[in-house]
Amino acid sequence: MTSKARIGVLGASGYTGSECVRLLLRHPHVEIALLTADRRAGQAMRDVFPQFSPYELPKLVSLEGFDWKNAGLDLVFGALPHATTQKVLKELLAQAPKTKVVDLSADFRLADPAAYARWYGHEHHAVELQKEAVYGLVEVYRPDVVKARLVANPGCYTTCAQLPLIPLLKARAIDPDEIVVDAKSGMTGAGRAARESMLFSEVSEGFNAYGVGHHRHMAELDQEFSKAAGREVVVSFTPHLVPMNRGILSTIYVRGTKNHLPESLHEILLKAYAKEAFVHVLPFGEMPQTRHVRGSNLTFIGVTKDRVAGRAIIGSALDNLVKGASGQAIQNMNLMLGFPEAAGLEQVALFP
Amino acid sequence: MTSKARIGVLGASGYTGSECVRLLLRHPHVEIALLTADRRAGQAMRDVFPQFSPYELPKLVSLEGFDWKNAGLDLVFGALPHATTQKVLKELLAQAPKTKVVDLSADFRLADPAAYARWYGHEHHAVELQKEAVYGLVEVYRPDVVKARLVANPGCYTTCAQLPLIPLLKARAIDPDEIVVDAKSGMTGAGRAARESMLFSEVSEGFNAYGVGHHRHMAELDQEFSKAAGREVVVSFTPHLVPMNRGILSTIYVRGTKNHLPESLHEILLKAYAKEAFVHVLPFGEMPQTRHVRGSNLTFIGVTKDRVAGRAIIGSALDNLVKGASGQAIQNMNLMLGFPEAAGLEQVALFP
Amino acid sequence: MTSKARIGVLGASGYTGSECVRLLLRHPHVEIALLTADRRAGQAMRDVFPQFSPYELPKLVSLEGFDWKNAGLDLVFGALPHATTQKVLKELLAQAPKTKVVDLSADFRLADPAAYARWYGHEHHAVELQKEAVYGLVEVYRPDVVKARLVANPGCYTTCAQLPLIPLLKARAIDPDEIVVDAKSGMTGAGRAARESMLFSEVSEGFNAYGVGHHRHMAELDQEFSKAAGREVVVSFTPHLVPMNRGILSTIYVRGTKNHLPESLHEILLKAYAKEAFVHVLPFGEMPQTRHVRGSNLTFIGVTKDRVAGRAIIGSALDNLVKGASGQAIQNMNLMLGFPEAAGLEQVALFP
Amino acid sequence: MTSKARIGVLGASGYTGSECVRLLLRHPHVEIALLTADRRAGQAMRDVFPQFSPYELPKLVSLEGFDWKNAGLDLVFGALPHATTQKVLKELLAQAPKTKVVDLSADFRLADPAAYARWYGHEHHAVELQKEAVYGLVEVYRPDVVKARLVANPGCYTTCAQLPLIPLLKARAIDPDEIVVDAKSGMTGAGRAARESMLFSEVSEGFNAYGVGHHRHMAELDQEFSKAAGREVVVSFTPHLVPMNRGILSTIYVRGTKNHLPESLHEILLKAYAKEAFVHVLPFGEMPQTRHVRGSNLTFIGVTKDRVAGRAIIGSALDNLVKGASGQAIQNMNLMLGFPEAAGLEQVALFP
Repeated sequence: MTSKARIGVLGASGYTGSECVRLLLRHPHVEIALLTADRRAGQAMRDVFPQFSPYELPKLVSLEGFDWKNAGLDLVFGALPHATTQKVLKELLAQAPKTKVVDLSADFRLADPAAYARWYGHEHHAVELQKEAVYGLVEVYRPDVVKARLVANPGCYTTCAQLPLIPLLKARAIDPDEIVVDAKSGMTGAGRAARESMLFSEVSEGFNAYGVGHHRHMAELDQEFSKAAGREVVVSFTPHLVPMNRGILSTIYVRGTKNHLPESLHEILLKAYAKEAFVHVLPFGEMPQTRHVRGSNLTFIGVTKDRVAGRAIIGSALDNLVKGASGQAIQNMNLMLGFPEAAGLEQVALFP
Repeated sequence: MTSKARIGVLGASGYTGSECVRLLLRHPHVEIALLTADRRAGQAMRDVFPQFSPYELPKLVSLEGFDWKNAGLDLVFGALPHATTQKVLKELLAQAPKTKVVDLSADFRLADPAAYARWYGHEHHAVELQKEAVYGLVEVYRPDVVKARLVANPGCYTTCAQLPLIPLLKARAIDPDEIVVDAKSGMTGAGRAARESMLFSEVSEGFNAYGVGHHRHMAELDQEFSKAAGREVVVSFTPHLVPMNRGILSTIYVRGTKNHLPESLHEILLKAYAKEAFVHVLPFGEMPQTRHVRGSNLTFIGVTKDRVAGRAIIGSALDNLVKGASGQAIQNMNLMLGFPEAAGLEQVALFP
Repeated sequence: MTSKARIGVLGASGYTGSECVRLLLRHPHVEIALLTADRRAGQAMRDVFPQFSPYELPKLVSLEGFDWKNAGLDLVFGALPHATTQKVLKELLAQAPKTKVVDLSADFRLADPAAYARWYGHEHHAVELQKEAVYGLVEVYRPDVVKARLVANPGCYTTCAQLPLIPLLKARAIDPDEIVVDAKSGMTGAGRAARESMLFSEVSEGFNAYGVGHHRHMAELDQEFSKAAGREVVVSFTPHLVPMNRGILSTIYVRGTKNHLPESLHEILLKAYAKEAFVHVLPFGEMPQTRHVRGSNLTFIGVTKDRVAGRAIIGSALDNLVKGASGQAIQNMNLMLGFPEAAGLEQVALFP
Repeated sequence: MTSKARIGVLGASGYTGSECVRLLLRHPHVEIALLTADRRAGQAMRDVFPQFSPYELPKLVSLEGFDWKNAGLDLVFGALPHATTQKVLKELLAQAPKTKVVDLSADFRLADPAAYARWYGHEHHAVELQKEAVYGLVEVYRPDVVKARLVANPGCYTTCAQLPLIPLLKARAIDPDEIVVDAKSGMTGAGRAARESMLFSEVSEGFNAYGVGHHRHMAELDQEFSKAAGREVVVSFTPHLVPMNRGILSTIYVRGTKNHLPESLHEILLKAYAKEAFVHVLPFGEMPQTRHVRGSNLTFIGVTKDRVAGRAIIGSALDNLVKGASGQAIQNMNLMLGFPEAAGLEQVALFP
């Protein structure tokens, strides 16, 4: 057996970090060589996530002054908070330019420095890397990912909305000016930071929208939808919080352009994803449920006819921590390191 | 003290029936004189809903051959399944024409017999009563309710969508052809019938749409929205199931007509509900959460500006068993029997 | 109408504070005159708990330098964190000695200063008040509560365990050396402080014990059980966290002393609580569920025969925020201010 | 590559059946050759469990008149209801005596026909098979399982209680007369049959005990505990329902025999499971949580000192559908068919 690739996870004490660890532990071609978590440095991974108690894993270390040059890492997953990421990755790639990176933060997703500055309120701290970064929606940018050194892993909400809409926009099959994306996410999408609004007692047995009219994910949608449509596209997008841990469901309202009835939209999606391992288009008229993709890297897509003439309702469901984050990140890694694209990602959904 | 009104609840073993009992038990002007539940006839209410164990309540009896003539009931709540309702109420009102009725089923909500037949697949069995019935959305039809003998209590989804949209349609402030209502409901809205798809293990930790494109509630929306707009209105409406017990949140996407910016829509709603006890319009830009109305008869409405020019996003939240069913039914009863409209409905929301 | 009593709630931004407000808002004999919340001072109550948006309430103020002397308060609820409480109440009662206090913290529950110091690791800061304080388990200490100026409201876990066990220990009907109390609580019992372990994603879809072998509530149990039994009693007690908001269920394993079969234990409890408004003993063999007391001030108690000869299993259920905290506090207030004991506490449980 | 073993799952429309399918789909040495589900016969597995939509699986067939002789099955999992099982397996093994069977029902767990008749109210219909059946708690009966044709897979509650208690009883380290097992299970343990008491709205946001004093699982505990202790053992056992899908936590109260302090009990368990892949003993004083074993075949065990002298509190957590049912069944299969014991069971727990 040849040696395994040496992988690091930066920010292993958060949910996307631990999800990387869960998946990497069973990946046939890698070994986990580095786990960082600044505030928990010195602790074992089991102290932060007790489910890893039975497994041997490296101790959590601090990023502070870490010697990237001699770490011998083949690839690193960045699961750090926004802004921190730019600084850390800049230093990492300066010291160890051959290490590859899949970044799960939002820092490198916007190609346009001006758009970045507008949405985030400050200049990007690593503009050169921003230019280099490949947007890692594998089903759309596979050839670029294969050659990339730095991949910006797409957001969970945006992956869920892009997979059904990109092929339809490319085919000019829907009206770009009448798209409503009503998105609902489980709570792990909000991360592990201790905030009052995320307490069990605040969240359980209730439902609400948030960030209405101004959620940052919109920048990413604008960029990719406009690219696909060949013109500016601005959609209505509202995120909601569901009292569940994992899963995003997007309910998408569209109007077909001339000759494109709902059945035709379904046909376009069926064809687009016929050979994809991780996008599953349901029979026409069936709608997806988040529970049926839980823990898997799959996206389920359904198309139904609306009773309003000419309109269709599209459902898209994925696990925000897998296809919406760490699973997609490993899918990117597989391409970047030359492994089979589905390696380590074959697990079947856990339902119930 | 004058004597209390004698009230019956038909179908007391279901959730809307038990919710009527919960509220009536603390209503200052009524006594619970009759509880029916065909399959549980002969049992005590505590056998069906143990929370009533400490209270004295009549035994559950069967509707079969019940003597309405001599029951001396002032008002009856119908919480029976669809279709059964028509038959039972027809007989009840034939035998006891002075008894008033608030019906919580869908049977008398559609004024047009043809619409009824189209949506339900059969002729209405009590067409005369269908004509007589008043649609009991109190905030819209208060003067009619006061004089009514038979009130059709609105549906939970439809109440939640109508309260924000009716004033806007009446004011011609939004485009009737571009309304999307994305609705999310807790599980009690699906009733208490034992069905596999409603088991805890099927529902918990997941989210999905259902009845996409053809939900029966749409008929009720079409009727009331068209009436308010003075022209035919057909909206896109998708119901979803949230893993929680109580609550409906509707996220509503609208486009303002000329001169009607989102702020103007908010202003119209503020004015429309300034004197209403049970509709609370939040400050502009705040959005409602279902948990903050749980157990109360309140509807919270919020209006926010969409980033798409000219569009607004409206949120509307209520407790499907209270303002969406039994609370609104008691509000109707209060008007019909001459009690203060808020009697028995003052409880503050239970959060957390 | 005579004037209403003026009530203050110290710590209104927490769950027991907001639950006091919920209940006081509908109490016929009081007005809410003061709400404090140091970190949220200056804000409206609706900013902290949006469910109160429709109601008029005083602004949140800081305790810092508050003028108790001229506040004209008849009674104050202390819903402050441990330790802070002692300091604040000492000053309050020094300035306004006629104001009465129901304290919901643990600070005044232990009568013995030595026991306090042992469990909390420091001397009590208000020993005189500790001596004065009456332990407010109304069903046991009603005559003392009526005359009290300062009442220490019992803990939620301990109320749930004491109500079934005190009468049995007093009757010498169970062996004090073989009591196991396995307690399960909803998450609101842990308060509203933002801690990682209390996030929805950490709590949902899981179950665990905590504080095993050394939970502070044990001191309170030891004190009251020993008093009831007339000898030292130390029980095995394990608290657990249930992924739900409200409710405590205690499953209690006991062995009857000579002649005391399970049926006899049930008989003792039935008699003890025959005239109590808020303790409901179920028929022999029925066990309580937390959902059937949610939102109410009731405790449901059940007794069943174990298959192990001579042993019984007792279930006790209450809503930790009502009978386990704020409801019981208002029950104490009612006695202290001469109101009917059940005033403001009549609401029926909210199920489902 | 050699050919794969041909496996059947009887009762594939229930939760333990679907969990077998989930695990078998990724097992390297088997193929799924048969799926039965009488009421859903003719349908695809995806119609019953949509999560399997992307995979190729045999259609569901009826057991009625199935030709076992020519089915060429190497092993069959029985996931059928009680009583049906006896009849079906008797016929199956008569027709195809070389097919091996792992039965997940309770039908073959009791070795003594008299005990069976007493607990189930009727004579066993396949007494010869009852004699032949090996009780499949692998960690205790591994050598017997290796040679077995028919294995009775242990129950979920009983596996959870036996793994910590059997080694302690064998070592005579705890008093067999003072064991209390307070067990809490997620809802999937109750199966998929549509019953009112299992609806989301009945279960969510509440907690309760059930089957108090007379749960059938006790027979299995009595049998195995008595065998381990070498004398009759009857424990107090109370099952509870937790509003979550997966997981059992048992909180077990024991008294150490002379010289056996809690630390010593921990030591015994550490040694007993040092080489076991699926039993993980936590450091002394740490207690397990169900969420940390979700979806995995692991059991986590913790031991803590009680404050009552001489007593210990033991926690045991597993996923009722994996180690408590289908995972353990596959562990049995692996031994019976000569595969590595952990094949197909390596997945890491899914948390959060």
